[in-house]
Amino acid sequence: MPRNAVVLLILALSATSYAAEDSTWVLQSRELPAPLGVSDVLRDSIAGTPQPDIESSSTSPQTDAEWEALISSIVNPVPLQLIGQGLGVEIDAEQIADVKVYRVTPPAISPEHEEHLFLYAHGGAYVFNGGDAAVSEAALVSALAGMEAIAIDYRMPPSDPFPAAVDDFIAVYLNLIESMEPTKIAVGGSSAGAGLALAALHKLKQLNAPLPGAVYAGSPWADLTKTGDTMYANEGIDRILVTYDGYLGGAARLYANGEDLTDPLLSPVYGEFSDFPPTIFVSGTRDLFLSDTVRTHRKMRAAGVTADLHVYEAMSHTGYGFMRQAPESNDWYQELINFLKTHLQ
Amino acid sequence: MPRNAVVLLILALSATSYAAEDSTWVLQSRELPAPLGVSDVLRDSIAGTPQPDIESSSTSPQTDAEWEALISSIVNPVPLQLIGQGLGVEIDAEQIADVKVYRVTPPAISPEHEEHLFLYAHGGAYVFNGGDAAVSEAALVSALAGMEAIAIDYRMPPSDPFPAAVDDFIAVYLNLIESMEPTKIAVGGSSAGAGLALAALHKLKQLNAPLPGAVYAGSPWADLTKTGDTMYANEGIDRILVTYDGYLGGAARLYANGEDLTDPLLSPVYGEFSDFPPTIFVSGTRDLFLSDTVRTHRKMRAAGVTADLHVYEAMSHTGYGFMRQAPESNDWYQELINFLKTHLQ
Repeated sequence: MPRNAVVLLILALSATSYAAEDSTWVLQSRELPAPLGVSDVLRDSIAGTPQPDIESSSTSPQTDAEWEALISSIVNPVPLQLIGQGLGVEIDAEQIADVKVYRVTPPAISPEHEEHLFLYAHGGAYVFNGGDAAVSEAALVSALAGMEAIAIDYRMPPSDPFPAAVDDFIAVYLNLIESMEPTKIAVGGSSAGAGLALAALHKLKQLNAPLPGAVYAGSPWADLTKTGDTMYANEGIDRILVTYDGYLGGAARLYANGEDLTDPLLSPVYGEFSDFPPTIFVSGTRDLFLSDTVRTHRKMRAAGVTADLHVYEAMSHTGYGFMRQAPESNDWYQELINFLKTHLQ
Repeated sequence: MPRNAVVLLILALSATSYAAEDSTWVLQSRELPAPLGVSDVLRDSIAGTPQPDIESSSTSPQTDAEWEALISSIVNPVPLQLIGQGLGVEIDAEQIADVKVYRVTPPAISPEHEEHLFLYAHGGAYVFNGGDAAVSEAALVSALAGMEAIAIDYRMPPSDPFPAAVDDFIAVYLNLIESMEPTKIAVGGSSAGAGLALAALHKLKQLNAPLPGAVYAGSPWADLTKTGDTMYANEGIDRILVTYDGYLGGAARLYANGEDLTDPLLSPVYGEFSDFPPTIFVSGTRDLFLSDTVRTHRKMRAAGVTADLHVYEAMSHTGYGFMRQAPESNDWYQELINFLKTHLQ
């Protein structure tokens, strides 16, 4: 509004210094209705689940034993064979370069993807979703795109902190490109998986290794520190992650194992993105990682990279993956698949 | 996080109905620090301005006389001649099809834009920024792109409510395409100007008139109702607009003059977007209109339109325009200009 704009301009010109402690705003309590500008399925789901509770979400295991107990208490909600049957894909556990992976073969290979591969890294804050849960979106993308996929069951803490996950990703990728063109591989995933893929690309650049042909950066955990503005603005609004100050922050410290969280191999947003392959980003307006997503997108654009951004109304972190019954989910995976068809050579 | 995801899945499967009155969340009071993941200039500006005050921003003129008094009290902060001098452009007041316009001639026309024109509609909630202020971004885009521009000083309420603004936009456009190819024209603007341009395109489709070659949709006011999720989530966070429940809602009702706010010519997000020309969107994570922006982007994508989205970290409504001294502003206008170069034929 012009009046505010005039005030802003005047203040911007006159403000020469400020006290940092005065620059934190205290947001008042206010109401957030169930969103109307989304599909009925997504709205009913949001309206039908309890409001996220910041306080009860603000705890995290403190010791390795507590982490191990938590991790082992979480059962993969969908058994591997059921994933395969539902999508018509075949899933085979293998090892590549001594790293555990799952090879996903779709019922039919699309003609344009006969020579292509989707190399997938699962999410779960670098601590969860090991084992069968590592297949995750790889099965879906493989089935929808008609493309072979390999999901990496990378090592994780507490037993194997950073850089084990990056090393595993790199080892699998370098093995694969011994027998196929790097540009025929798309890499990526969601959340920590997207962060890991982006970190691995920084590492490949350090190694002067050839880069893959395309990247899927789904709501990437691109910054392990609590820096992104939506880490604060969407606290208690994102119904999946809820807050940084619980598992997330704890997992970041557990994974980093004392290393600087702003190392680009831990927080890829701090890296340099020149020569990155075409990358597609997705997030939601309620995503705690919306800021991580748009900050990384902008850094890529500034580096001259082909990078597309998609943001869904009122969607929490990786809602497209959790809400497969919502039209928004199909819409997103269609975007992703079209992107891969366009950009994989 | 997996534990939340499991809970969510279970609840999503079991939730068959809900009471609408229970579906509104009450967000607790919490802190929002000045953002760290932005340029120093933007951070210092945010840190150096007072926190937006929702309560004092929740008033609006009630009568035509009160609106007229408010409108006339707002002085264009930058005189027309100063705009022209600072950017090296020439600005001439003219009339096209009996509509007041400003013709902006840059110091040098870029070779690729010799036959192109940027047809600009200013923002200001359909009530502010008439007269010289109507030039606004048209001068900047003209200078940076090296392209001639025409800024429409469209009629506004209280004297001339909807559909006067749409009619003026259409009249100018139809006059222009009598002597030039429609696809050589880019249309658009920011805020209400972007909403008006999108509404005008819906109208052109109704008239079976040829469409322009590209659209600039800067933080579009694409929905005059309080529907977008960020109308709630970013209330008191967006330092420019602050809240819908003041000038904005009042201006929406004043402009609509009793017509249904969900008419696509008032709220273009409710229209059908097939055949729209390539469109570029921009918003910020703190923008009250972030939801309007992403909802419109998604509708266009679903309709098969070439539509690019750009979102800036911690930026409020149209911050790229108000904060010209911030690197984010130059970054954005470079994106816009590259887009116009790519898509104008």
